[in-house]
Amino acid sequence: MSNESKPTSPIDLAVSQPSDREIKMVRIFNAPRERVWRAMTEPALLAQWWGRGNKLVIEKYEPVRGGHWRFVEHADDGVHGFEGRFREVTPPSRCVQTFEWDGMPAYVIIATAELEDLGDGRTRLTSTSLFHTNEECDGMLNSGMTVGAGQSYAALDKVLAAMK
Amino acid sequence: MSNESKPTSPIDLAVSQPSDREIKMVRIFNAPRERVWRAMTEPALLAQWWGRGNKLVIEKYEPVRGGHWRFVEHADDGVHGFEGRFREVTPPSRCVQTFEWDGMPAYVIIATAELEDLGDGRTRLTSTSLFHTNEECDGMLNSGMTVGAGQSYAALDKVLAAMK
Repeated sequence: MSNESKPTSPIDLAVSQPSDREIKMVRIFNAPRERVWRAMTEPALLAQWWGRGNKLVIEKYEPVRGGHWRFVEHADDGVHGFEGRFREVTPPSRCVQTFEWDGMPAYVIIATAELEDLGDGRTRLTSTSLFHTNEECDGMLNSGMTVGAGQSYAALDKVLAAMK
Repeated sequence: MSNESKPTSPIDLAVSQPSDREIKMVRIFNAPRERVWRAMTEPALLAQWWGRGNKLVIEKYEPVRGGHWRFVEHADDGVHGFEGRFREVTPPSRCVQTFEWDGMPAYVIIATAELEDLGDGRTRLTSTSLFHTNEECDGMLNSGMTVGAGQSYAALDKVLAAMK
């Protein structure tokens, strides 16, 4: 991984590592910020893209400080639970939450999402993941995290287009 | 904080910082390891010492990999919720879990407890707390963590003595 973001076209995902325990992903969406925020925080919309086309059951979703969330994705390779808790929810620009996969319980990522209004009807999403150790960070990169994120964001593009 | 543990008598708590994101506490108990493990993992016993003498309500306690826990302490300054999830539970020697206080939701500590049989009827507990940032680690030290731990361990001494 490079510490520099690559130049990016609107549908490219720019991946960088601000430190050896962090992964940063930047992606631009062709939709205004309020719409992107809604698609990222309303359960009925989240369920349409978060699972990359797989069935997603939202067992819990409380997007307020201290609230919990739990999603179950029904993928080809099995059923995967994910859960966490919200540290900060500031519409329409910033959300900080924990993220855990049931397959590695109690390995906790701090996931920060920031939305910037680009002033031309587009929105920049910057997602930063902070890990407790460099090994966990490398493991996540090697697991194909950025491929999965790219698939989710492609599905989000379609949800945003349908919200027009 | 020094990076070196202080010499310690059996009832002293030795505190050190293995790194700028970790706090290590070492304490010796006058009880065999199996008994200390029980007092640390059986809810009816935990409730007698974890809250340092305050009423403790154990809302959830599932000491297996992936299981969750949630305690509510009724202290003089108010009601405080704590929760987390288990990464590893290996009786009678090792437990790794996450730890969060409701007052700072989604600030997650990795708490590792290791019990060593000293061969003379005593047991050494080494508790390590790993934080995502140095600021969170310093904040915990400044909040009086080691005083609280000392009070909990003094209460645990009494529980262990009563289990004889």
